Order: sequence, then structure tokens, then C-alpha cells
Amino acid sequence: MMPDPRSLVSRIRLTPPSLGDNTADADRLVQALKTELETDVIGIDLALLKRLPEVLRAADYQIDGLVFRERRGWTLLDACPRGQTPAAAGLAVDLGTTRVVLRLVQLFSGQTLAESAFDNPQAAIGADVLARLHHAETESGLAELHESIIGGVNRETLEMCREAQLLPEDVVVLVLAGNTAMSHLFLGLPPRWMIREPYIPVVNTPGILPARDLGLAVNPAARVLVFPNVGSYFGGDLIAGILYSGLSENTGTSILVDVGTNAEVVIGNDQWLMACAGAAGPALEGGVTRMGMNAAPGVIDRVRMDPATREFEFSTIGNQPPRGICGSGLIDLAASLYLGGMIDIRGKFVADACGEKLEQRHDIPTLVMVPREKSATGSDLTLSQADLDSLVRSKAAMYTILETITESVGLAFDQLETFFVAGTFGAFIDPRTAITIGMIPDLPLERYQALGNSSLEGAGMMLTGRGRLATIDRIRDRITYLELNVNQAFMNRFSAARFIPHTNRDLFPSVK
Amino acid sequence: MMPDPRSLVSRIRLTPPSLGDNTADADRLVQALKTELETDVIGIDLALLKRLPEVLRAADYQIDGLVFRERRGWTLLDACPRGQTPAAAGLAVDLGTTRVVLRLVQLFSGQTLAESAFDNPQAAIGADVLARLHHAETESGLAELHESIIGGVNRETLEMCREAQLLPEDVVVLVLAGNTAMSHLFLGLPPRWMIREPYIPVVNTPGILPARDLGLAVNPAARVLVFPNVGSYFGGDLIAGILYSGLSENTGTSILVDVGTNAEVVIGNDQWLMACAGAAGPALEGGVTRMGMNAAPGVIDRVRMDPATREFEFSTIGNQPPRGICGSGLIDLAASLYLGGMIDIRGKFVADACGEKLEQRHDIPTLVMVPREKSATGSDLTLSQADLDSLVRSKAAMYTILETITESVGLAFDQLETFFVAGTFGAFIDPRTAITIGMIPDLPLERYQALGNSSLEGAGMMLTGRGRLATIDRIRDRITYLELNVNQAFMNRFSAARFIPHTNRDLFPSVK
Repeated sequence: MMPDPRSLVSRIRLTPPSLGDNTADADRLVQALKTELETDVIGIDLALLKRLPEVLRAADYQIDGLVFRERRGWTLLDACPRGQTPAAAGLAVDLGTTRVVLRLVQLFSGQTLAESAFDNPQAAIGADVLARLHHAETESGLAELHESIIGGVNRETLEMCREAQLLPEDVVVLVLAGNTAMSHLFLGLPPRWMIREPYIPVVNTPGILPARDLGLAVNPAARVLVFPNVGSYFGGDLIAGILYSGLSENTGTSILVDVGTNAEVVIGNDQWLMACAGAAGPALEGGVTRMGMNAAPGVIDRVRMDPATREFEFSTIGNQPPRGICGSGLIDLAASLYLGGMIDIRGKFVADACGEKLEQRHDIPTLVMVPREKSATGSDLTLSQADLDSLVRSKAAMYTILETITESVGLAFDQLETFFVAGTFGAFIDPRTAITIGMIPDLPLERYQALGNSSLEGAGMMLTGRGRLATIDRIRDRITYLELNVNQAFMNRFSAARFIPHTNRDLFPSVK
Repeated sequence: MMPDPRSLVSRIRLTPPSLGDNTADADRLVQALKTELETDVIGIDLALLKRLPEVLRAADYQIDGLVFRERRGWTLLDACPRGQTPAAAGLAVDLGTTRVVLRLVQLFSGQTLAESAFDNPQAAIGADVLARLHHAETESGLAELHESIIGGVNRETLEMCREAQLLPEDVVVLVLAGNTAMSHLFLGLPPRWMIREPYIPVVNTPGILPARDLGLAVNPAARVLVFPNVGSYFGGDLIAGILYSGLSENTGTSILVDVGTNAEVVIGNDQWLMACAGAAGPALEGGVTRMGMNAAPGVIDRVRMDPATREFEFSTIGNQPPRGICGSGLIDLAASLYLGGMIDIRGKFVADACGEKLEQRHDIPTLVMVPREKSATGSDLTLSQADLDSLVRSKAAMYTILETITESVGLAFDQLETFFVAGTFGAFIDPRTAITIGMIPDLPLERYQALGNSSLEGAGMMLTGRGRLATIDRIRDRITYLELNVNQAFMNRFSAARFIPHTNRDLFPSVK
């Protein structure tokens, strides 16, 4: 009988050894587990093997065993007297370039014990991915980056365990989802050929590794699953997101967009998956990427404008005095300005409509959104024409990528069943205003679904038994990666999308 | 196509990556190996993964890969540019209680590069197995014993590699065969329950482990195979011996005897195997075990006596002046004394026949075999009545065990096709004289076959492809272990065997 997929524990009652049955402790247990799990392959980690005789005798040979399904069979990670539910915990990790988010899960109940986040300490070595990958080529640079992230995860794990009243040794499984570069640095693998044509990672499917080989300060028998990637620009974070969305299990075709440091898109259903990433061409560089501003207390995340008074209403994160604006707030703002006639279809300020809100600063037309006396920073919060131009390029790039990949599979937007929006961007964006500026297609709002931190959620599913290795492998193997060629057709689409909402107004009937 | 079993190398020609085929290095290689080896499961050790991109590019994607067959599939341990045969070496280890013997093998050619031996450094902690197992229960005692043997293997490996002009990193496979206690200490596993009823080892089948988990200073990706055991008293050294003898592959029934620290016997054929060990009862303790004296330069290994003159002729190891006598010499001597009428059928000295060679020393009749002026030690080399009594108990124990196990499978000695004699004992013994004293059955001499260090040979077979994991598993799984009950029937047999050659002279027609 297969164990309940939500539970990794296997309850084993062994016949104690005798002179007539002197099978060794480990082999006795393995034999029982083979019957229980209907498998030929059971391994016991050496670290557990060393404790096993005392564990079995203390439990009078009636134990709960914690088994972990690997690609090559099962491994017994821990064992404890029957009924004394072991503290066995797992850690799901969203391994972000900027921010690392962790969730500590009780493996038997599936209960979340703690959630925490910390800034990726590699940022002190290199602010962005490329800086880190170049640093990895210097002497001991790779080791430095590897130890930096391992150290960060170890420190945070220790702290989370302390708060949850667990020992780091109680952590027996880690599941990590990150982009290909972050996954490589976490594993200590040289990323040299990822950033040189034809952009080859060391490995697509790192599989499952012993935690001790990576220097992780958890249970010495713990196993680490690193989500596979499709290539240098389509990482395990996306695979985790697809797993969490369920997109690859649906008969209807859906699309998933993740905008983090990069813009990554996947479209498909239970038959096929097509993916692309936004770092493909120079037209997109510094475009989409600048949308993902950090959400933090005091940052404006929602903006509305009274069309009559042209006064802004806004909300900030944590209801703190305003200190900046994040991507979702910026999109809201641009939509309001457009609907209020304060910017034109090219995204240029209309001086007459803006009135005294518009000033020339450093020779650039600049809109004062929040005057200094109302701002937490003591300075005006402003939006310059340069900021607007950048936003328009970003939204045009996004729309063009969506259009290109959807057309590449011979579909129109309205044939998409669900439009999943993942990542920080997806958590805050208002699809209504994003449609207004022509960033995303004009679909009925109910088709949009925000996934939140889908990378963390996907990793978490592997801890609670709602995700299977076979599903991950199937997702990875089914993805066809579309190289975005910045050819004439692409540039034509991009040019048409550089208007608000678009040169072809028929594409956006809901925008009046 | 399966690789040639003598070769672990797989020649791989990869299509280099391109923008249109950007599969990662590792996955590209794994895919090719899966086709080559017709397997679903290929792993690459993390240590190799870190070097892989440079190796592939330096080789222009045409490499020789060193694959290792594990129970759960294959692991790629090393890779090098095609045609540049890698230095990949393996180490076969006979992990003895007293002496550790190593053989360094070039894996691709199967050629032996070096052979070496060292005294087991654990002897400084505990002279015999039991002393060490008790020490393992003291605080940090197990770690001390584990580090002692690992340190010894590391030092010897370094030295052997230096002489063979290899680096320790060139050693990618280790195969060890030792008794259950030595194997446990090598793995750092607590032997506490091996020496308490019902005598349970931690593990019967340790399987294959990464060398780095054991602290071995070889290639970080190296794999370690430890031969499985059948129980606390029937170890992997015997399984290796059975493998080497081929006994388990023959249709005819044969018997194998290994006398080292212990006396272990296996009887069987390609259908079944029955085994027992001589540490089963108090009658045998200090008996059989005292036969295995160390062979060293100057030790008498062969003795003949001129029946007319009653003068001894002997040979010593290395033709050095005599300094002692080892088991085979002792058996020869006893046989000569018996045939010359100098001892009787009870093994007691016949004073008249011995003449002036016999003296009373410490009130015990003692035969001077080599007078001090001819001995290398400056003292007489003697054989006391106590020594003789001990020899007679030993030979009686041996014969009784052989008789018991053979009868237990319903056979008579003359139905045995081959009588394999393994271990130090087997390498030196002269079956003729052993028959004369009634230690082994009176079979035609050509049925006796000395195996030498069968434990080392069996381990070596796993390096040269002449041995398979499946064969080892099959041997282990087919062995029925016979507990030697020291009951009345056993004691009766033992009493009858305490005569030279036996109370029943019909059993030894060749002894006149």
C-alpha cells in the first residue's frame, strides 16, 4: 500500500530479533519497509544507521519511520518510537536574488510552523545576478557566493527552529526553488557558461542531494531537493510556480506570468507547455525588470484619482506615511493619468491637463504626486517623463512577450482559461489598471488569478505531499523553450504596444 | 549495449550545445549515458558536477566517462577527454583484524599497480576483536577505533599512490571485505548488540557509500562498497571468499574453510549455501583460533622428519634462520611425530621414541625441535605437551565443525567436489599432513584447493568487473546460517576427533 501522499511517515511494527532470527537491525527494518511501501529500493542514511540500534531497542521495535521518496527509491531519514510523533520538519525555500523566503513545515501534519525572510546576503558581493555570476569566476569567488547563501539559510533556519522550539537536527528535508543562477550558486556549481553563448547551465535537474554535502546545518541525514530548470533563463522557481498553479494539469489552456528580476511566461495545459523569458533581447533590458520595485512599509501600492478634482487618493503598505511607489502603484497611477487625460496615448504628459502639478525639473517634465509636506521622506514624491517612458517600454515589452508566445501556439488571448500572475508583481497588481495601460490583455477580470509567492508555495507542496517528483519531472520535460528572437515582427508588435493602451484600440474594448 | 563487464568506462561522443540545443552539460551527458548503458537511472556526484563544464569543453564534448554500477542504477564518477585514459584506480581491501592488505588496481585495464599491507592500527587500542568491541562502548571509543582504521587506510593509500605515481584523487572506487566487526568499525557503526545475545549487527548489507562520508582521503566522488555479512559471526570476508572460489556457481557441492581469527565454513553449490562459524561454543574457544599464527620471515612453515634418523628437516619463510613455527609447520610437525611414533593416538609424547629430544620443562614434557645454537632467537624452539594438547583440541574442533555441517545437509565428505581452503592457514597448509592428524577429511589430495587471500581476491574481482553486485547479493541471500549447538551429539563427535587421526580409523584409510 502506498503511504498517504500527505504523510511521509510509515508505521512499522517489527518482530524483535532472536537467536533464531538474527537479521541485522537495518536489514530487518528495510525488509518491513519494502513490504509496507511496495518497493525494491530502500536506503538508510549512514547518519541514521549509527543511531538505529538504540532507537529500535528504545522503541521495543515499534517505530514510526520517516521515509523520503527519491528518484531511485526511498530513503529512511529518521525513526522514533511509535506514537511519539517525531519533530521531523521540512523547509521550503524561495531562493530569490534579492530576498530569500523560508517556510518551516511539520512534515507529518503539513502544518506551517513558521515563515521568515531575509535579504540574500550575496547582494553584498554583487547587487544583481550578472555581477554575482562574474564574481563567481574570480578566485574563490564561487566558494564565497556559495558560503554566503548557505550561511544565510543556516542562520535563518537556526532562528526559525529556535522560535518553533525545534532543533536544526529536526529539519530532515529541504526543498528549494530559485532561478537557475541562484540554484547554481546554492549548489556551488560554476555558472561560467550560463552567461556565454549558447548559455549552458551545468545542470538542469540537480535532483536530490544529502544536506551535509552542501554544508547545511540541519539533520545530517537530511535530503535537499532543488527544483530543476529549463535553461539559464527559465529556472526552478518557475517550475515551482507551474506546479502550484496547476496549469499543467488542466485540460484548458492557461498562461502564467512571473515578473521578478526577470519576466518569465509559460503557456500550456496538460498536453503541452511553452515558455519564454524576458531577458531575450536588448529591447527588454532594463524594461520589464524595473517594474518589480520592492514593496515595503510606506510604499504606495494603490492609486486612484478623482476625475473631477484630479486629486490623488492612495494607500500605502502598512498605512505608513508615503515614501515611494511600487510597481502596482505606478501602474494604477499611469492608468489614472491616462483616464484623466493628463497623459496622452504616447504616455507623454499633457501640460494643460496637469496644470500646476507639472513642473520642469532638470529640464524634464515632472509630476508632483505627493508634496514634500505630506511625504515621509521630506522630499516631493514625483513621476518624471523619463519614469513614464520607462513604464511604457516595460508594459509594451510585457504585452509583446505575451502576444508573441500566445500567437506562437496559434491561440488568441480570449482562448486562455486562466491568466495566472505570480511573484511580488502578481501579488499587488490590479488587473483592471494594468489592462487600462495595455500591459496585459483585455480579458474578463475573473480570468486573472494572483498566485502570490508561487515559488515558495510550489516548494511547500513537496513537503506536504501535494506535489510529486514525477509531476515536477513531467513539467520540466514537457516545456518547450521559445527563444524570443527580436526580429522585425517582434519589433513591429513592440512599437504598436508602446501606445496606451495600444495602437489597435479594438484590442482593448473595455478601456474607454 | 551493456558495457564490457571488465571495463567501467563508457566512451561518449556528445553533440556540443548550441542556441538551438541548450540542454545543460550534466543532462546532456546523462542522456547519452542512459542510451549507452540502457538504464533509466544515472547520477553524477556533486564533486564531479563542479568540474564537469570545464572537462567537457576541454575534451570538445568527446569524453571517456567512468561509470560505477550501484544497486539503484549507475553513477558517473569521473570523466576525461576521450582517448586520454584516466588514471582512475580502485582499491581492494582485505580488512583483517590483525593485518590489512590492499591492492591498487587500474580500473580500465584491470592491472594491479601495487599491493601492500599494514598492521591494523586498532591493535594498539584492543589486541583482539572483543577488546575493540568493548572499547567501542566507552566514550568516544567508537570514534577512536573508526578514525584509527580510516587513518591507516588513508596513510597506506597515500603511500601506494605515491609509489604508483598516482594522486589519491585518482582512487575512485574502494571495495572492502572484512569480518562483521571490522566492517562495523570501519563504517563507524556501534557494535554493541553484536556481542550480546541474540548477537545482532547494525547492518547486514551496508551497500555503497560516498567515500567522503567515511573520511577517506581519495577522490571526493569515490564510492565505497563494503561486502555484506550474514551475521555477527559470518562476515563479508567470507562472502568475498565464496565469490572468489566460484563455489556458489558450481552444480557440484563444495566446501570452503577459512581459518583466520575464527574458523568459518560454508558448504553448497549453485542452488543452496549453508554456513557456520567456529566461535559457536566454549569447546572451540581458544582452540581453532590459535592455529592462525603469523607467517613472517624465519618462521618454520614446513617440517619433515626422516623416519630412520628422527632428524627434522624444515624450511622457513624467506629462508631465514628459524625463530618460531606457524600453523602449517605445527601440523607438519605433529604429523611427522605421529608417523614416527613419537606421539600416540591421544597426541601424548612417547618418551622412549622421543629419546633425548624430550625434556621436562616447568614440569611439562617438552620436545626441543631446534636447539638454541641453531635458532635465530638464541633460545630453543620447543613444542610442549600443552602446545600439542591445544593443537589436538583445535584439529578436533575443526573436524567436528566440518563433520557437523556436512552431515546437516545430508552429505558425506566424499560427495564434496572441491575442498577450498582460504586464509593464511589455507595458503600454507599441506593437506597431506592435515589429513594425517585428522584435521580435515581423508579426501583425494587433488580435491583440496588453496585460495590464498580469498577476501582480497574477492574484493579485487569487483574492481576488474569479474564480480557483480547481483552475485554478491545472491550469495548473501542464499546462505542459511547454521547455529552450532554444542549439544551431546556435537560433544560426542568432538571427543571422537580428539584422537589422531580419529577413533574411527576407517575414516582415514590413507593414514598408515
